[in-house]
Amino acid sequence: MALITPRTPAGTMELLPRRQITFQRMLDTIRRNYERFGFIPLETPVFEVADVLLSKSGGETEKQVYFVQSTGAIEQGHKPDLAMRFDLTVPTARYVAQYERELAFPFRRYQMQRVYRGERAQKGRYREFYQCDIDVIGKDSLPVAYDAEMPAVIYAVFTELAVGPFQINFNNRKILLGMFEALGVMDPVRRTLVLRQVDKLDKLSREEVLGILQTTEDISLSAEQAVSVLDMIGFSGPSADTLAHLNRLGLDNALFKEGVDELTQVVGALKAFGVPETHWRINLAIARGLDYYTGTVYETFLTDHPSLGSVCSGGRYENLAGLYTKSKLPGVGISIGLTRLFYALEQAGIVKDGDSSVQALVTQFDPALLTDYLSIGAELRAAGVNTEIYLSPDKPAKQFKYADKAGIRYAVIMGGDEKAKGEVLVKDMVAGSQNAVKREELAAWLKSVIG
Amino acid sequence: MALITPRTPAGTMELLPRRQITFQRMLDTIRRNYERFGFIPLETPVFEVADVLLSKSGGETEKQVYFVQSTGAIEQGHKPDLAMRFDLTVPTARYVAQYERELAFPFRRYQMQRVYRGERAQKGRYREFYQCDIDVIGKDSLPVAYDAEMPAVIYAVFTELAVGPFQINFNNRKILLGMFEALGVMDPVRRTLVLRQVDKLDKLSREEVLGILQTTEDISLSAEQAVSVLDMIGFSGPSADTLAHLNRLGLDNALFKEGVDELTQVVGALKAFGVPETHWRINLAIARGLDYYTGTVYETFLTDHPSLGSVCSGGRYENLAGLYTKSKLPGVGISIGLTRLFYALEQAGIVKDGDSSVQALVTQFDPALLTDYLSIGAELRAAGVNTEIYLSPDKPAKQFKYADKAGIRYAVIMGGDEKAKGEVLVKDMVAGSQNAVKREELAAWLKSVIG
Repeated sequence: MALITPRTPAGTMELLPRRQITFQRMLDTIRRNYERFGFIPLETPVFEVADVLLSKSGGETEKQVYFVQSTGAIEQGHKPDLAMRFDLTVPTARYVAQYERELAFPFRRYQMQRVYRGERAQKGRYREFYQCDIDVIGKDSLPVAYDAEMPAVIYAVFTELAVGPFQINFNNRKILLGMFEALGVMDPVRRTLVLRQVDKLDKLSREEVLGILQTTEDISLSAEQAVSVLDMIGFSGPSADTLAHLNRLGLDNALFKEGVDELTQVVGALKAFGVPETHWRINLAIARGLDYYTGTVYETFLTDHPSLGSVCSGGRYENLAGLYTKSKLPGVGISIGLTRLFYALEQAGIVKDGDSSVQALVTQFDPALLTDYLSIGAELRAAGVNTEIYLSPDKPAKQFKYADKAGIRYAVIMGGDEKAKGEVLVKDMVAGSQNAVKREELAAWLKSVIG
Repeated sequence: MALITPRTPAGTMELLPRRQITFQRMLDTIRRNYERFGFIPLETPVFEVADVLLSKSGGETEKQVYFVQSTGAIEQGHKPDLAMRFDLTVPTARYVAQYERELAFPFRRYQMQRVYRGERAQKGRYREFYQCDIDVIGKDSLPVAYDAEMPAVIYAVFTELAVGPFQINFNNRKILLGMFEALGVMDPVRRTLVLRQVDKLDKLSREEVLGILQTTEDISLSAEQAVSVLDMIGFSGPSADTLAHLNRLGLDNALFKEGVDELTQVVGALKAFGVPETHWRINLAIARGLDYYTGTVYETFLTDHPSLGSVCSGGRYENLAGLYTKSKLPGVGISIGLTRLFYALEQAGIVKDGDSSVQALVTQFDPALLTDYLSIGAELRAAGVNTEIYLSPDKPAKQFKYADKAGIRYAVIMGGDEKAKGEVLVKDMVAGSQNAVKREELAAWLKSVIG
């Protein structure tokens, strides 16, 4: 029979063991920090009833949705009635509306699952990827202090992920909306284009951006408008200066004032959370998508890898689940797209093969001592050391080669001589050194070197 | 606009927060033990190229497969080219064949992911459910000692899951195949029917089963054959007696002898692994599916819940990935169907709401002290206590009610008086007691009571 070529669908993620271990450690780090900040786990089914999932979207978005059908249903010519989640926000909205009465509010959940998009296959596009989200969802209201907790979580997560220096940028969209209102720029598309140009201030001069804002066809601000925009949101500096700048503007617009007030509260709370200002700044030019978010918005950049764009984003929204319930459910949340981040870090050489999750390999030096090796393995496992026992009677060199390839650091060796002395040898595969250890002290010894 | 009723597809699993936490702890327990025994993580994409996934199966199995298609592909009238995994074995086989050169053998992976089956919706049938698998896969050969490791893992996992008394049953299919060969019972369907009747020996008398084996239409053993079958595999007793019984039979069949030899080795190694015989027995009547497994087979039963059937099963197979590679890849593995087990345990009242993963709630007694609460929260989190800060200025009673509903055990309270004294109060929501604790000792105090 002809062999079938084993392969995975384009745009999906699959890793070799030691990369998988590294990825798993990143997932664990994110989860540990999410739990540390008092978020609880949620998992939703990979597919939803199509009508429920797609109630809102249409057009382009819907083209990227994967529909699911069993063979039976296809044969009977049914239309697919199941669709795979394309993010974690819609399933969470559905969940909160569905179980509203049973949930305790504020509902603080983390959700770390894969999402699916029927993208055209190309480099950097994923059809299946992890999102790691947290959200705090209130009933009727949710104080702005919760907005300050998000950067505290981002700070803890990215510090522990150890992927180099990073900076959390945040802003309040009410400031932007208020400014545009005051300047009479009402068209959302035009607003987006303006913000995109302001964002170029770190590459272009003020004069150049001023020119672009006036001469670009779909923007066409007046000279006065363009100057106002740059005067207001072209400002960059420490948070105290930025807040002083906003207050100095004295713009007579309710939304703008509300935004400045909220931003001031967030900055104050962030200091109480102990997040050092070296790792965050107010960035008046960021807005995220102009529809969904209504207040604070976040973006996070890796200082050494600006081309990655934001690696953790989110914001405050007015009402999570208006499609499913009449209750008002305001919330705030962030999301880490871990699959994309992981591959980008891998390409940048930051993410490497991890040591194995297996901490010790009990080798088989003498097949006659097999039951001893099994007992040593059982003792180490009982003591909490992740232990593999090599059960094939291969030559020692082959067993060490295996430990090396698998990334297992400590190899335990015992021949007849060692057994007679009540000892074992422990070979450190990284350092290349070897130690004789009393057998009854082996577990404690290994635990101390593993740390 | 009319509201959409939020709902999940039939046959999928979704849990309220405190059940989700319980479920998550079970997943964590299984994973921790799998890693303790030296298994490394593997994750594969939820869908595979349809031709690769369905190379083997057909007919009934294929009807239960979910196919996946993007809207674009449906509109263009394409046949679905993606299909969702229906188990973890086929994706693992594909993975091992695909990355054969890069993997270190024996390849020991755990995989804990959801699988999908397009089942007719009915009670107890799941369209999406977790499987938690381990396998050891060798290249060319794999010593039988690995077969003894599986019950050691099952013992560790189920002991720590704390779901009541359990017993691991195992057998070697070569014994059964050899017996049938020797008796001239060659038809696989007939063999299966015979084994199903022998399995009834715990409910029916020997005479009754003997009668059934002779008179049931598709079985129709001769009186002599029926007696032989019961003489050979109707035996039940301690492992030493069972092995003695098998040796006493002296059946002159190579396969049978090989099976007895392997079974003897497994029993010996299992003792060296320290698994007490109170938790396992040789059960000569179990066979698992007659196609896939070729040697040792396992089933695990909860003593108090026999109606659940086996909650952890598996066995030894000759060649994992013959469809994808010419290499011979023998292996042995087990699988826990956690979704099914969880719901069954829930119905039996064994699984209950867990305490929250949030260990402490910093309440907001006086809004003027908000920054203090944020600092206390930050201190607790830095010390490793999973902490939520209640940021809405609600009445204390409402905040305690929230802690109670969410299952958060310790509520931290600080008003102006406590602050002046450098103290906080800690309310134990379960015990109903309250303690005054020095603020600088709070983290250590909580860590000691949390344990």
